[in-house]
Amino acid sequence: MIISEIKSFLEEKRSIVERALDQYFPKGGKYGKRVLDASLYSLKAGGKRIRPILCLMGYELYKPNSEDILPFACGLECIHTYSLIHDDLPSMDDDDLRRGKPSCHKAFDEATAILAGDGLLTLAFELFTHQDLIKRVNPSAVIQAINKVAKAVGLKGMVGGQMADLLAEGKRGSLKKLHWIHKHKTVAFIEASLVSGAILASAPKDEINILSRFGNKLGLIFQIVDDLLDLLGDEKTLGKPIKSDLKRQKLTYPSILGIEETKRITKELTNEALTNLEPLGERAKLLKDLTLYLSERMN
Amino acid sequence: MIISEIKSFLEEKRSIVERALDQYFPKGGKYGKRVLDASLYSLKAGGKRIRPILCLMGYELYKPNSEDILPFACGLECIHTYSLIHDDLPSMDDDDLRRGKPSCHKAFDEATAILAGDGLLTLAFELFTHQDLIKRVNPSAVIQAINKVAKAVGLKGMVGGQMADLLAEGKRGSLKKLHWIHKHKTVAFIEASLVSGAILASAPKDEINILSRFGNKLGLIFQIVDDLLDLLGDEKTLGKPIKSDLKRQKLTYPSILGIEETKRITKELTNEALTNLEPLGERAKLLKDLTLYLSERMN
Repeated sequence: MIISEIKSFLEEKRSIVERALDQYFPKGGKYGKRVLDASLYSLKAGGKRIRPILCLMGYELYKPNSEDILPFACGLECIHTYSLIHDDLPSMDDDDLRRGKPSCHKAFDEATAILAGDGLLTLAFELFTHQDLIKRVNPSAVIQAINKVAKAVGLKGMVGGQMADLLAEGKRGSLKKLHWIHKHKTVAFIEASLVSGAILASAPKDEINILSRFGNKLGLIFQIVDDLLDLLGDEKTLGKPIKSDLKRQKLTYPSILGIEETKRITKELTNEALTNLEPLGERAKLLKDLTLYLSERMN
Repeated sequence: MIISEIKSFLEEKRSIVERALDQYFPKGGKYGKRVLDASLYSLKAGGKRIRPILCLMGYELYKPNSEDILPFACGLECIHTYSLIHDDLPSMDDDDLRRGKPSCHKAFDEATAILAGDGLLTLAFELFTHQDLIKRVNPSAVIQAINKVAKAVGLKGMVGGQMADLLAEGKRGSLKKLHWIHKHKTVAFIEASLVSGAILASAPKDEINILSRFGNKLGLIFQIVDDLLDLLGDEKTLGKPIKSDLKRQKLTYPSILGIEETKRITKELTNEALTNLEPLGERAKLLKDLTLYLSERMN
């Protein structure tokens, strides 16, 4: 019951985000149009749009009109897509498939894929300062939200995490290092997506802290379940070959702790995440359902 | 006389910018430290720091305390450095040397260089929203300046220009296409660097328009002189092999119009740029001297 409710909520938000992505993606491009085509190809290749949805959910905890922050939410998806395009490159994870379709450098070429990633990352910040957002949201809150996201995906966030992930390949690694990699590569951005929405809604400081703690748990659940699905999932549903982590000797929770212990930890994290939300009471219902839904993916 | 004055002005500003870059570059990085090392390697490889200096000059036309916007100015240099790192990659311009030193992917490796570029681009937006800036500059002006820069370096700016530049290699091209490429790849960012400084100082709209027209001329002079120096310059002074454009059959002004006609156009553009500045009177003296200085580089 919970599952079908949250699924239809996510579906509804996903279609709102996708319409907004269409609306805000730049048109034209003339002699450089190829890079717009490549960016749009990857941006529209599907995906759960979970980061923009988390941003809208963070905002809706405090204000009803979340369409006001759609440009910001779309910017988050641009950043996510850029990170996938660059991660797939031959010198990085060298993945030919993404969501069941050729990855960007396969559908276009390497130079175009690098530029498409660069362009999407830049587009994010153009959208974060889009006039449709600015005329409706407090400018200081916008700046604070941009800073939060930039830190989460920067040299000491997602980019640093991807660097460490590459360096850890094929090596024995500790749980401590793996935790650091996940926290930087995935968790910080998921946490920032939720928290930026609350910041844009001028949420009280103490509740931002609550959401931040919860977001860190949710992000970790998300990543660990991804690791499990790579081992146990179905290629068709995932749209990419399974066991790619194993092949590349990636550091993952199952590779260090085994499948059963990883499942146990996920359940523990899920309980902790739900406990984090207690102070928000009934308002946090959707976030609770989302947590249960995401942690159920592994079964 | 003019030349030695502007040279010492540029030198002074350059050292202020470089101190600020040291101050604002993130420390630490733990398991991902390699990407911070690579970013810093390229950021500190030298260069004229012309974009941050133009930003400070745009600000100083209206307000004296340009140290207030140093985080923003440093962000512009981060973007410039990211663009050089990615342009040098094997799948792009494939340059092994940059400013007399191994380019980033040679000193480190390709994956690290891609990530270093990504990290520097992201760091720019972290610096554009740095609290040292925010506590001193009007937040709406900051947002407007970020939007200006993001557009200039994005899919329909610098990134689109680099795409078109790559696509034009080895092909016959029109002056119209070359102009489009230069405008997008180089000029828009130089113009935005100057104009963003004026925006941060809350300059009047009509003067921002004047600076924008001037900045477009200055950027074009800058690029054309670069094209000429690649043909006529000295490898030691440039820190890279000359005639690389010729080798890669790049579309340049000299390749289409010849050297003499290109020099004539540069002089014409210089006069137009100086005329653009007339309405600003004595306040524009430094910008005028800078224009003359940059256009003299070709002799």
